[in-house]
Amino acid sequence: MSWLDTSIMNTRGVARGASATTHDLNEAAQGTFHFTIGPYSAPVLTVQPGDRIVVETRDAFNGKVNTEQDLPSKVLTMPFVNPQNGPIMIEGAMPGDTIAVYIESMAPRGPNPRGTCCMIPDFGALSGTAFTALLAESLPEKVRKIDVDEEGVYWSKRVTLPYRPHIGTLSCSPEIDSINSLTPDQHGGNMDLPDMGPGSITYLPVRTEGGRLFIGDAHACQGDGEVCGTAVEYPSTTTIRVDVIKGWKLEWPRLENEEMILAIGSARPLEDATRIAYKELILWMEAEFGYDKWDAYMMLSQCGKVRLGNFVDPKYTVGAGILKKYLAP
Amino acid sequence: MSWLDTSIMNTRGVARGASATTHDLNEAAQGTFHFTIGPYSAPVLTVQPGDRIVVETRDAFNGKVNTEQDLPSKVLTMPFVNPQNGPIMIEGAMPGDTIAVYIESMAPRGPNPRGTCCMIPDFGALSGTAFTALLAESLPEKVRKIDVDEEGVYWSKRVTLPYRPHIGTLSCSPEIDSINSLTPDQHGGNMDLPDMGPGSITYLPVRTEGGRLFIGDAHACQGDGEVCGTAVEYPSTTTIRVDVIKGWKLEWPRLENEEMILAIGSARPLEDATRIAYKELILWMEAEFGYDKWDAYMMLSQCGKVRLGNFVDPKYTVGAGILKKYLAP
Amino acid sequence: MSWLDTSIMNTRGVARGASATTHDLNEAAQGTFHFTIGPYSAPVLTVQPGDRIVVETRDAFNGKVNTEQDLPSKVLTMPFVNPQNGPIMIEGAMPGDTIAVYIESMAPRGPNPRGTCCMIPDFGALSGTAFTALLAESLPEKVRKIDVDEEGVYWSKRVTLPYRPHIGTLSCSPEIDSINSLTPDQHGGNMDLPDMGPGSITYLPVRTEGGRLFIGDAHACQGDGEVCGTAVEYPSTTTIRVDVIKGWKLEWPRLENEEMILAIGSARPLEDATRIAYKELILWMEAEFGYDKWDAYMMLSQCGKVRLGNFVDPKYTVGAGILKKYLAP
Amino acid sequence: MSWLDTSIMNTRGVARGASATTHDLNEAAQGTFHFTIGPYSAPVLTVQPGDRIVVETRDAFNGKVNTEQDLPSKVLTMPFVNPQNGPIMIEGAMPGDTIAVYIESMAPRGPNPRGTCCMIPDFGALSGTAFTALLAESLPEKVRKIDVDEEGVYWSKRVTLPYRPHIGTLSCSPEIDSINSLTPDQHGGNMDLPDMGPGSITYLPVRTEGGRLFIGDAHACQGDGEVCGTAVEYPSTTTIRVDVIKGWKLEWPRLENEEMILAIGSARPLEDATRIAYKELILWMEAEFGYDKWDAYMMLSQCGKVRLGNFVDPKYTVGAGILKKYLAP
Repeated sequence: MSWLDTSIMNTRGVARGASATTHDLNEAAQGTFHFTIGPYSAPVLTVQPGDRIVVETRDAFNGKVNTEQDLPSKVLTMPFVNPQNGPIMIEGAMPGDTIAVYIESMAPRGPNPRGTCCMIPDFGALSGTAFTALLAESLPEKVRKIDVDEEGVYWSKRVTLPYRPHIGTLSCSPEIDSINSLTPDQHGGNMDLPDMGPGSITYLPVRTEGGRLFIGDAHACQGDGEVCGTAVEYPSTTTIRVDVIKGWKLEWPRLENEEMILAIGSARPLEDATRIAYKELILWMEAEFGYDKWDAYMMLSQCGKVRLGNFVDPKYTVGAGILKKYLAP
Repeated sequence: MSWLDTSIMNTRGVARGASATTHDLNEAAQGTFHFTIGPYSAPVLTVQPGDRIVVETRDAFNGKVNTEQDLPSKVLTMPFVNPQNGPIMIEGAMPGDTIAVYIESMAPRGPNPRGTCCMIPDFGALSGTAFTALLAESLPEKVRKIDVDEEGVYWSKRVTLPYRPHIGTLSCSPEIDSINSLTPDQHGGNMDLPDMGPGSITYLPVRTEGGRLFIGDAHACQGDGEVCGTAVEYPSTTTIRVDVIKGWKLEWPRLENEEMILAIGSARPLEDATRIAYKELILWMEAEFGYDKWDAYMMLSQCGKVRLGNFVDPKYTVGAGILKKYLAP
Repeated sequence: MSWLDTSIMNTRGVARGASATTHDLNEAAQGTFHFTIGPYSAPVLTVQPGDRIVVETRDAFNGKVNTEQDLPSKVLTMPFVNPQNGPIMIEGAMPGDTIAVYIESMAPRGPNPRGTCCMIPDFGALSGTAFTALLAESLPEKVRKIDVDEEGVYWSKRVTLPYRPHIGTLSCSPEIDSINSLTPDQHGGNMDLPDMGPGSITYLPVRTEGGRLFIGDAHACQGDGEVCGTAVEYPSTTTIRVDVIKGWKLEWPRLENEEMILAIGSARPLEDATRIAYKELILWMEAEFGYDKWDAYMMLSQCGKVRLGNFVDPKYTVGAGILKKYLAP
Repeated sequence: MSWLDTSIMNTRGVARGASATTHDLNEAAQGTFHFTIGPYSAPVLTVQPGDRIVVETRDAFNGKVNTEQDLPSKVLTMPFVNPQNGPIMIEGAMPGDTIAVYIESMAPRGPNPRGTCCMIPDFGALSGTAFTALLAESLPEKVRKIDVDEEGVYWSKRVTLPYRPHIGTLSCSPEIDSINSLTPDQHGGNMDLPDMGPGSITYLPVRTEGGRLFIGDAHACQGDGEVCGTAVEYPSTTTIRVDVIKGWKLEWPRLENEEMILAIGSARPLEDATRIAYKELILWMEAEFGYDKWDAYMMLSQCGKVRLGNFVDPKYTVGAGILKKYLAP
């Protein structure tokens, strides 16, 4: 028996883990990619709870950085970066429900060097930015093209990094806002959380009928915080399975994997993202795992795990987690 | 000669200060109010540069808090607060231009007590909030209804405050995003800056054709920072005159009045809002007033003025200004 | 009758405004200046409540920047900057009391150009710093020497700024810590608040016997926030009068002038400094001016005044104030 | 061969890993414990590089919380918490050098329940605090007494946590300041970093002759961030070995263990602590491991590890690390 059988998705989702139709959301099926996540775009696909979707994601540069001479400042036009597949409608998802997204697999696609990492002017954690507005000169603009396969990320002659893919941007639509795909918030968005890879289930709050799922921004690997502003961005074939959990109303995204559950917050300053994540985790432990609120608070002070997604996006993202073994009754 | 004759609006705007048509954007003409500011809503009015518009704004509670027993948690549904008039299209405004909005006058409308101030649960600077997420009990929910006329704001038997009205929320549309009317950002939005009252000109960057001007959120008076989260919110008849400055490309809103110019930034944490405002002011002094960048930086360290708009909204707003007399050649 | 007669200092201080001895704390009397504020240094002077002290302060660069070629990185050695006069013991001041410091006058001393403003590498609000640690190149290092007299600050051919002096650093000793003179905190310290000039009374919490008053860091003028990191720093002859308010226990410094009372907070991020200031002001209004806490909170949201001291020091400083006329019973 | 043989401590320290004298710094030898870390206290011990010291640390409550009825607000007097052993002088340590502290072992001492975890009013990440000053009611005050042995931390009937001890507070003296033991900063201090346990080497910058090493604040286990404000605080017998690395001048503490190196930053807001840590790590990789600065920056964006120490102390602490295998030439 897989841990999935006891996951929230498979025990509380409409499909109860039953397998169903597989849909192919390739580049052609997608057609127009989206750069803002909201209720105003036309659905590209409608699926049933339990369905599998094979998605061809583009890299965050929309495929425009192909050599180390393709400088972002030349080839990109803001805000048209981080293209998203979707919106995918899930039948039966209504405001107040939650959509579960299980990532089955992520494979690289396209010719090598598929991977791209850039230092983009006035972007990144150790640079002045549009928000931390300074008078200093920008850092140098740099592009690295990197070979990526399912064995590794070939960073340099000296270093090969493990292939540890994850989805950087995963969202349900906000109710009335439409939010650019660079920003994470209560709807999910550009969280850049390395835990959101194959073998994880992300739970997203539904705020419009059908949920309007968006997905994109595959990373072949990423360090905690995505310090320079970009991961090893690459085009992927990502296979997900989706379900709907009726009546589970979330304020913020959550995540589950074999070992732990994780609540996710996105805000500035970084301590506020961390506060959100821990508070949501405590309320979750209280509501569903039989913990007294203050006991949960004090116990997490001894065993809570913090995952830093990004501290470079317009909001920063943090996950706060607890090992499932401590949740057993 | 009025100072307006030498303002940026009247010297560089298309209309050059010439008077023109007056439009009446009353409640009936507005019809549906808006709670998100973006490119997806239908225009309510199209005007020429130089035109005057008389706008009937609703209060931030959409008129639903009429007695001190109308608790926000009962009568309001998020995110349907802070209703906005518009979008108003200004002929000839194109991306890369700037719209100038001169506020001629603001008069209260509707029966007294017209003014409303609330303490809303989990909102306000001295409370835990959705972002500064804490485990503390919410502060008590409270409503104050206040008589307002053009002579004063009758806060209590002990205190009458001066009537110093301003517009809390003033925006051009973002290019692809649609942003709820509670949030300030590069498009303007919910800045809550007390300087934005009669006698001020606000400059807003145009990012979509026609600019798509939104206006709302009149305050009969407001302290620096709007510390409890709300001002004396009231329905107003606000008269504005608009113009277009071709080819003046701004990153953030700016403001001008008889005495000073002000650059405006919105961000969290608050120092980042202040950094944006000062940086924009320095670049403005360099680009248009013959200042060396470093001289401007050092001189503002001696004479810069900081205005705190709000430190309660999803982003905080700060203006950084300099007296016009120091800009004379 | 002067407003001083009704000030907290003169109505509640031990001396009740009575005139007393004048002490001369000139350079020779001071001998060794101090760069850290705490309980471990030897007192330089003991005075009675009500006494006047004429203090020769040095500039923040300890007099080492005498020409525009004296670069701080060459002539200064950290942490030996911002020299302080003191500690001055005030007879009868005990932990739990408050020391009042009325600034009577501030006169420039020494030969012109007496004033100094510098851009110091990796310091200032629009630069990466030791705390906002970035990889960008430092801003250029620059020194401006400026003529200063009691008529004006002669910034440039184009601009003469008014002479509006204030004391940047004013402190009682912490109980057990010793804090460098660049940092503001609960003991006062390097607040850089332009309101702290002649005609103001600063109230400082006493945490050790005698209070151990330190003073220094005169500024001939300063903009809100001290954005480049330095004001027009100059050597001064500053005349203060001190008193002790028995049993008035403060957590943070406070200030009073003819028009307003002000609570002062120092913290990072900047919103926390502002929160402290407003909270202290509300508690003050509740404890001493007959205000209900929630009424004070909501009313300050309509009429509170925020003063930004610095947003460049290791902690940022904000004052929150209310006009005295709103405090009348 | 142990990894220690190739550590910076054992390859570059004066003692080169040679064993030497063992000193016993028990309660009696310590006598007076310290609550502020600076150059003004009398040394308790002088040792040679390479020496071993067996330290009896007290818990952060100075042993005053012995039952769940001993409320901190009753039994503690601020700022007399978090007692520190030391200062220990290391022969030959001079400003500009670095002290290495290898933690060999940590054993609990005293009778069970030895462990203490408290919710202290106006302290902790999900509470208003002295700095994040709010008007909300304090969270309830709570004390948990917990049995601790080298097999486990017996949190509740439901949960036993692993015994993963670490030292919360480890410091060399600042040059002229004396900093309370609750605050982390460039001198080390109250970092609360769970990696600082047995098997780790911490490197601390020497700023006064002899270094003046302080140590205390043992934690039997701690979650990332120490969210409620306290860990499982307990009295320990901690055995350390110290050495001096001549001429290795650090700005901030660093850490090494078998797998990784870690740079440590402490600041508010939390992103600034993270920036410091990553910047220091990049400069370290550039200076000592043959990395180009920009290559290090971009590579850490793919493989950097972030450890959150605390986000409850007056400054927050973050470590940024890289696996040693990526540093091999």
